[in-house]
Amino acid sequence: MDTLQRDGDDMEWKESARWIKFEEKVEEGGERWSKPHVSTLSLHSLFELRTCLQTGTVLLDLDGYSLPQIIDDVIEKQIEDGLLKPELREKLSYVLLRKHRHQTKKPIHRSLADIGKSVSSNTRSPVRGPAAGAAFHRSTEDLRLRQSASYGRLRHAQSRSMNDISDTPSTDQLKNKFIKKIPKDAEASNVLVGEVEFLEKPFVAFVRLLQATMLGGVTEVPVPTRFLFILLGPAGKAKSYNEIGRAIATLMVDDLFSDVAYKARDREDLIAGIDEFLDEVIVLPPGEWDPNIRIEPPKKVPSAEKRWVGLDQHVATPVSSSGGVRAFPISIGVRGDVVWPSTPVTPPLLRPQGVMESFLGTAMAGSMFCLFAGQPLIILSSTGPILIFEKLLFDFSKGNGIDYMEFRLWIGLHSALQCLILVATDASFIIKYITRFTEEGFSTLISFIFIYDAIKKMIGAFKYYPINSDFKPDYVTMYKCECVAPDPANATLFDASAPVAPNTTNVSLSNALNLTALDWTQLSKKECLKYGGSLVGKSCKFVPDLALMSFILFFGTYSMTLTLKKFKFSRYFPTKVRAFIADFSNVFSILLFCGVDACFGLDTPKLHIPSIIKPTRVDRGWFVFPFGKNPWWVYLASALPALLVTILIFMDQQITAVIVNRKEHKLRKAAGYHLDLFWVGILMAVCSFMGLPWYVAATVISIAHIDSLKMETETSAPGEQPQFLGVREQRVTGIIVFVLTGISVFLAPILKYIPMPVLYGVFLYMGVASLNGIQFWDRCKLFLMPAKHQPDYVFLRHVPLRRIHLFTLVQIVCLAVLWILKSTVAAIIFPVMILALILVRRLLDFVFSQHDLAWIDNIIPEKEKKKEDDKKKKKKGNKGDTLRSDSSPNGSDMDRSITLHLKISCPSSPAFNYSRNPICAVPQVKIEMESDYEDSDTEKAPRDMGSETTL
Amino acid sequence: MDTLQRDGDDMEWKESARWIKFEEKVEEGGERWSKPHVSTLSLHSLFELRTCLQTGTVLLDLDGYSLPQIIDDVIEKQIEDGLLKPELREKLSYVLLRKHRHQTKKPIHRSLADIGKSVSSNTRSPVRGPAAGAAFHRSTEDLRLRQSASYGRLRHAQSRSMNDISDTPSTDQLKNKFIKKIPKDAEASNVLVGEVEFLEKPFVAFVRLLQATMLGGVTEVPVPTRFLFILLGPAGKAKSYNEIGRAIATLMVDDLFSDVAYKARDREDLIAGIDEFLDEVIVLPPGEWDPNIRIEPPKKVPSAEKRWVGLDQHVATPVSSSGGVRAFPISIGVRGDVVWPSTPVTPPLLRPQGVMESFLGTAMAGSMFCLFAGQPLIILSSTGPILIFEKLLFDFSKGNGIDYMEFRLWIGLHSALQCLILVATDASFIIKYITRFTEEGFSTLISFIFIYDAIKKMIGAFKYYPINSDFKPDYVTMYKCECVAPDPANATLFDASAPVAPNTTNVSLSNALNLTALDWTQLSKKECLKYGGSLVGKSCKFVPDLALMSFILFFGTYSMTLTLKKFKFSRYFPTKVRAFIADFSNVFSILLFCGVDACFGLDTPKLHIPSIIKPTRVDRGWFVFPFGKNPWWVYLASALPALLVTILIFMDQQITAVIVNRKEHKLRKAAGYHLDLFWVGILMAVCSFMGLPWYVAATVISIAHIDSLKMETETSAPGEQPQFLGVREQRVTGIIVFVLTGISVFLAPILKYIPMPVLYGVFLYMGVASLNGIQFWDRCKLFLMPAKHQPDYVFLRHVPLRRIHLFTLVQIVCLAVLWILKSTVAAIIFPVMILALILVRRLLDFVFSQHDLAWIDNIIPEKEKKKEDDKKKKKKGNKGDTLRSDSSPNGSDMDRSITLHLKISCPSSPAFNYSRNPICAVPQVKIEMESDYEDSDTEKAPRDMGSETTL
Repeated sequence: MDTLQRDGDDMEWKESARWIKFEEKVEEGGERWSKPHVSTLSLHSLFELRTCLQTGTVLLDLDGYSLPQIIDDVIEKQIEDGLLKPELREKLSYVLLRKHRHQTKKPIHRSLADIGKSVSSNTRSPVRGPAAGAAFHRSTEDLRLRQSASYGRLRHAQSRSMNDISDTPSTDQLKNKFIKKIPKDAEASNVLVGEVEFLEKPFVAFVRLLQATMLGGVTEVPVPTRFLFILLGPAGKAKSYNEIGRAIATLMVDDLFSDVAYKARDREDLIAGIDEFLDEVIVLPPGEWDPNIRIEPPKKVPSAEKRWVGLDQHVATPVSSSGGVRAFPISIGVRGDVVWPSTPVTPPLLRPQGVMESFLGTAMAGSMFCLFAGQPLIILSSTGPILIFEKLLFDFSKGNGIDYMEFRLWIGLHSALQCLILVATDASFIIKYITRFTEEGFSTLISFIFIYDAIKKMIGAFKYYPINSDFKPDYVTMYKCECVAPDPANATLFDASAPVAPNTTNVSLSNALNLTALDWTQLSKKECLKYGGSLVGKSCKFVPDLALMSFILFFGTYSMTLTLKKFKFSRYFPTKVRAFIADFSNVFSILLFCGVDACFGLDTPKLHIPSIIKPTRVDRGWFVFPFGKNPWWVYLASALPALLVTILIFMDQQITAVIVNRKEHKLRKAAGYHLDLFWVGILMAVCSFMGLPWYVAATVISIAHIDSLKMETETSAPGEQPQFLGVREQRVTGIIVFVLTGISVFLAPILKYIPMPVLYGVFLYMGVASLNGIQFWDRCKLFLMPAKHQPDYVFLRHVPLRRIHLFTLVQIVCLAVLWILKSTVAAIIFPVMILALILVRRLLDFVFSQHDLAWIDNIIPEKEKKKEDDKKKKKKGNKGDTLRSDSSPNGSDMDRSITLHLKISCPSSPAFNYSRNPICAVPQVKIEMESDYEDSDTEKAPRDMGSETTL
Repeated sequence: MDTLQRDGDDMEWKESARWIKFEEKVEEGGERWSKPHVSTLSLHSLFELRTCLQTGTVLLDLDGYSLPQIIDDVIEKQIEDGLLKPELREKLSYVLLRKHRHQTKKPIHRSLADIGKSVSSNTRSPVRGPAAGAAFHRSTEDLRLRQSASYGRLRHAQSRSMNDISDTPSTDQLKNKFIKKIPKDAEASNVLVGEVEFLEKPFVAFVRLLQATMLGGVTEVPVPTRFLFILLGPAGKAKSYNEIGRAIATLMVDDLFSDVAYKARDREDLIAGIDEFLDEVIVLPPGEWDPNIRIEPPKKVPSAEKRWVGLDQHVATPVSSSGGVRAFPISIGVRGDVVWPSTPVTPPLLRPQGVMESFLGTAMAGSMFCLFAGQPLIILSSTGPILIFEKLLFDFSKGNGIDYMEFRLWIGLHSALQCLILVATDASFIIKYITRFTEEGFSTLISFIFIYDAIKKMIGAFKYYPINSDFKPDYVTMYKCECVAPDPANATLFDASAPVAPNTTNVSLSNALNLTALDWTQLSKKECLKYGGSLVGKSCKFVPDLALMSFILFFGTYSMTLTLKKFKFSRYFPTKVRAFIADFSNVFSILLFCGVDACFGLDTPKLHIPSIIKPTRVDRGWFVFPFGKNPWWVYLASALPALLVTILIFMDQQITAVIVNRKEHKLRKAAGYHLDLFWVGILMAVCSFMGLPWYVAATVISIAHIDSLKMETETSAPGEQPQFLGVREQRVTGIIVFVLTGISVFLAPILKYIPMPVLYGVFLYMGVASLNGIQFWDRCKLFLMPAKHQPDYVFLRHVPLRRIHLFTLVQIVCLAVLWILKSTVAAIIFPVMILALILVRRLLDFVFSQHDLAWIDNIIPEKEKKKEDDKKKKKKGNKGDTLRSDSSPNGSDMDRSITLHLKISCPSSPAFNYSRNPICAVPQVKIEMESDYEDSDTEKAPRDMGSETTL
């Protein structure tokens, strides 16, 4: 939209607003574009526009090649129709062909040069105009995208010698980066409004060109013009003209009206289009809204199809979530995110399986899977439940005198076999009984274990490095720790017994001989104890600074990661920089606190990785021999624990696969549930033979993988959300990730600078972050929120709060029971306990109505769903819609809100041995993908997960 | 709005929505009210409503006393007019008198009892209705406040035996807490809409009662009904009826339409009212907005007066910010905040003035001022600039051999005299040259000093308690610190010289005698050094844990305070609990970290307050004698430093007073600038004689004081912001604060548990928080933000970004220069430097246009302002408005966005002596009170500060 402005004797068209779906206004003083916002119009202006089109000149399919020619034609037509006095032709033509000035950014570096200028232009007071008696003229110019049936608005200009406008795009136009926001086949609609003294009644023209034509400097960017709206009127009503200009501009970006404008045969078609638009507008009462508030563009607007349907049937139909095809050109771009597994893909240390096994196993299993599996977007990892189970197994076999590696091999083989049987029997149907209740209970438990372990290890540091709280700086002289030689009697005894001990080395022998000659004060703590000395002194059992330093590193890393993650939503720096910082927040935190640690130079525990590639235990090779160490019945009995392992693997693998293959990801490759499970089984057997950890699909990492491969539309209208197009499906990225994991074995010299508390800080963050996306956790929080502050969760609209609280309480009780069981000897039946969760959930069917469960637990049983479908069919014949339909979970055209399991494995190291428990449990994060709809009429209810897949 | 619903054979009216200014919808499934939101209507429904009123029955001033009688009258009228067949009378009457069910909260504790119920009601699927073929009926009922010209809508009921409705309010109605949201003189409008099978054309009635009447159980709460709108129609168009009901409900809460409805003489008046409403409605284009999105109530809506003006003149006039009188009843309540000085009001320690002087001085000066000053809401304190100056003065006099206390007394007396001269000469006009530029530069500097000092003291801890970074836990035996006796030769020397030293005490004498017999290993560090021993060992110069513990306490307190402050805006707990936690965030943080400190039991530095009331220095009493210690010329020369002090006091005092007396606070008591300054002068003299610190108005504390005394409307419509009424002006609260400050001297036994790092953490928080409200700081942040992410500051709309950046850069350079000067010997002329800032600001007039400065620096010079006024007068005669007027800073009907100085003094203690600098500088916090207007048309520009006061 261009405004006609008078600068002394000169007039020019000044761009005052533009529309690309949403309105952007030129902020005169600020010399910049406003944020895109929803156009708020007055009803009055729409009616005035209607009148304008009824009385003004409407030229459809004018064959125009340049602005002067078009203007001539329009004026000629007006004179013909007796709307315009012939003597005004020259004046009007002069005004309409004035130069067009566009709002473009001035570079900052010009500011200093402007200093002098602005002093001299002190008179540039914004109210100068009227004081000088000058009338302001405004014209409008808009840009709009088009594809098949849409278009845009541009602007227009003219020179003092009758024509200021060139036919070729100017350098400014070509340099304007704004063109990137406009699709290549977009056409413009130019709106020119303003007031001039010589007119007595308004001059109105609506022009559609036969062919979209480049009108040179009229447009801000070189886009061909298809439509032209001109409104020039007598002085004194500029504000009103401006509003009419805004109205037509807003209409031209409306999908339906633009279609009408393209196809209109005559004036009446256009007016009918306005009437249709009016029929659909949303009205805000003046007493409840300030018209000056700029409304932010909504996340989603009804698609044109829906609106067509609405117009045709005049029945409010529930809007499906997937939306219609956008009448909008999309150009494909790829988000440039780097696939960085959010944590080193190293599972925690099991005693016979160290860091070396983790790295190599992950690299081998992961790349094999990516090469051959049905769904190569899935990333394998050693997940939490499996690791917990392996730890329990290890303790069990140790306690019962069974050789662990051989036992484990047999369990692995049995489990692999069971997996293959599952594949063969098409058993994936079981997954449909695993609802949100089970998933979330399970993953919350894992998150808690993760948080608990991180904190426990931190507290361990305080025990391992005790702080001397009685220390008084002034009495520093009182604190020492001396190695005192043993009593001569004992010393002799030691001396005498030394040769008897078979494993006494030469060194200790020679030392033992010199024992009496030893300078005891020069011995270290370990040496002193070794030679039978005793430590005497107040400072012996204390270690200064290390505990507090560990805490600072631990908590600092945690807070820093949290802060950097949140930085993504701050206002600072361009989006890409922020995304980069947030994506790599844990890397930055780790680096920073490694630096802090290095600055202090304290002897904090560090991460150590062996620098030679060999099994962690010296007494075994890379192959576990299946026979000879255990009695024969163990080979058979291991089928029972194998069953538990199979349950775990099956659950982890299939839930992840369902999430990866979900509809929203728009994958083109078909799912391969059984092929995937087949490969997991095979890898299970291989890993068991090699003594490597077992691997299964890791949900978080897989989801992160998919997220990084998402494609979105690159050019979208300012203020509009980019549209998701699909995922770049291939096998390369996964393989690269795993090859790099393998290579990281050689990074030992670098990794040894990482203090363990820093890593525990990252794990604490992961545990806490993983709780955040879980609906169960959201519901727990509701207990603490007064009703009026509660977020507008969909389920809160449909299920009474007390029912939700009851459901949450049941989950809390289940979790408490699981937690207690986990800490007892019953822990080995962990997988069965998870199956028990499914049973509890089935029992809830008798306590909660299916309607409530549908909203809280996102599941509608099959029979209920069928009923719904039947109803739907009936409804189609039924003209009237029901008042209650808004609260009905709509069974078919909505997405299943599947929860994502975020599984993170954690590295551990023998070097940091103040914690007894080498297991670092793995959290599962659920990221709810459900989009909250703003009103119940369009709300989606969940549908059965099983029905969506081909299981 | 009540919906007619069929439950088997029964029908009942069910409340489906209510309007108290904003709409609240009943969420069927959730069994609760939605959040208040702006009613989004369809244009269609408004036109249909218009038709309804044109064709239906309109009964104005009906003399009704009960619902059955009113219904009878309405039906009678319809039959009379031939709109209704007489045989439908019974049926219609039966439907309209059905029972009314209201949406009330069910208590949570009923949830368990509901378990069984919900299982049996499994069939309560929301789409059951239409499946059973039943038609839904809906009616509308709204509640609305009224005063003089507004009203509300209620609901309606009826019994099976023709009348379900009692005339007296039910227990449910009386128990309903919702009544608190409705003013006492509110009247209701009931909207009843629904569909019935027996009607062939709609039955429409609009009834205004002569007297507002209690219609018993019709309304959710016992509010008398004035208006009744009934729409019953043939089956199949329930949705449409519902929309019409919503439209009339929205109209009835509109200030202008409600006025029309009260005064309407006939049907045509009502229709004209709708037309006026339509003329004003705001229209959102369907393609840019989803009608299902619930729009949150805006912070501010145009007042009815403004809209009347708009209607009368049909000219868009700039809307004044102060707003019209709200056509809304307000009941007065007081916010229950506790006045808690955000920090102990103890100034830092000057060497001759310790904690004791601070406490007593603050208590004495503060309560005196509160008792006698012109503006008792001002709280006196020892502010930052004064303290800095005193410190410089102390160093100066020490360096030049001048007795400080006497010198200071004379300066105080001169300064007091100068203050009185200023009072006598009415010199406060100078203040108008102090613009935002100067204020913010000054306060940012103070904030930086505050942050700098807190961090410096923290780093000091690391120097004072050095960490042994080479410590290896295993070599603990190598670390000790032994006191080694001096060489025998030296010892003898010491022994011999001991009696010569005049100040050797008896104890040391006797010790000296036994020196050779001394057990050196049993001596503490201090004793060892005292007796000439030397400390030998690796651990001598290190102090374990204390530095890191101090850091944890320091940073923990800072982060905790920050987090708790933010907790105010969280969703958890009721508003009052959150406000309590946020208001006392520093108390909670201090308590928590004192607890942490106590748990570890480490010897961290603590806050110590003397337990006996006496001057800190033993060599002086409570009265400083004016003569005898310095040469006579010092008495005269002290007038020069006194001038600097006067400048500081004058600036601090007057800026604070202007802020306290500003228009927005709606104070009824007149300002007393000169009386205030008079008392500050008198107290200055008194404090100088007693050797107490000097006191001046402390802005932050004064503002906090005022905030805690603010009165707001208690009942406001859901979703509406409470209205500010005024401040409880009195002298009691201030005096109580100061009496309590005095009493805190006796709290020494408790305060000694507070570690100093905790206090420094609080100071760091204050320094950082004080930066947050400063516009200069906001502008600094703009450097880091891409243009599209920048907040919508008013000045950004009117001043080009590069000009803003230039202005900010000038400020940064000024600050850097001030900072450098402060660190050199030139520091003593600190007050003059602040005057230099004013000069720099005057020079900026030649670099920036007055328009730009008006927006960035919030000032329009007097001449410019007059011009504007002239223009305004001219404009009044001018019908047409200018296109550019939106960017004009409107000179007179807008508020001055005055910045608040937040001054915080900090306690210090001799006990914590690792920092060399006992001065704890004081930050000034600026809280911008400017309200950001959403569009330029109503934006307020600042006006000259001086012009607002009577200076």
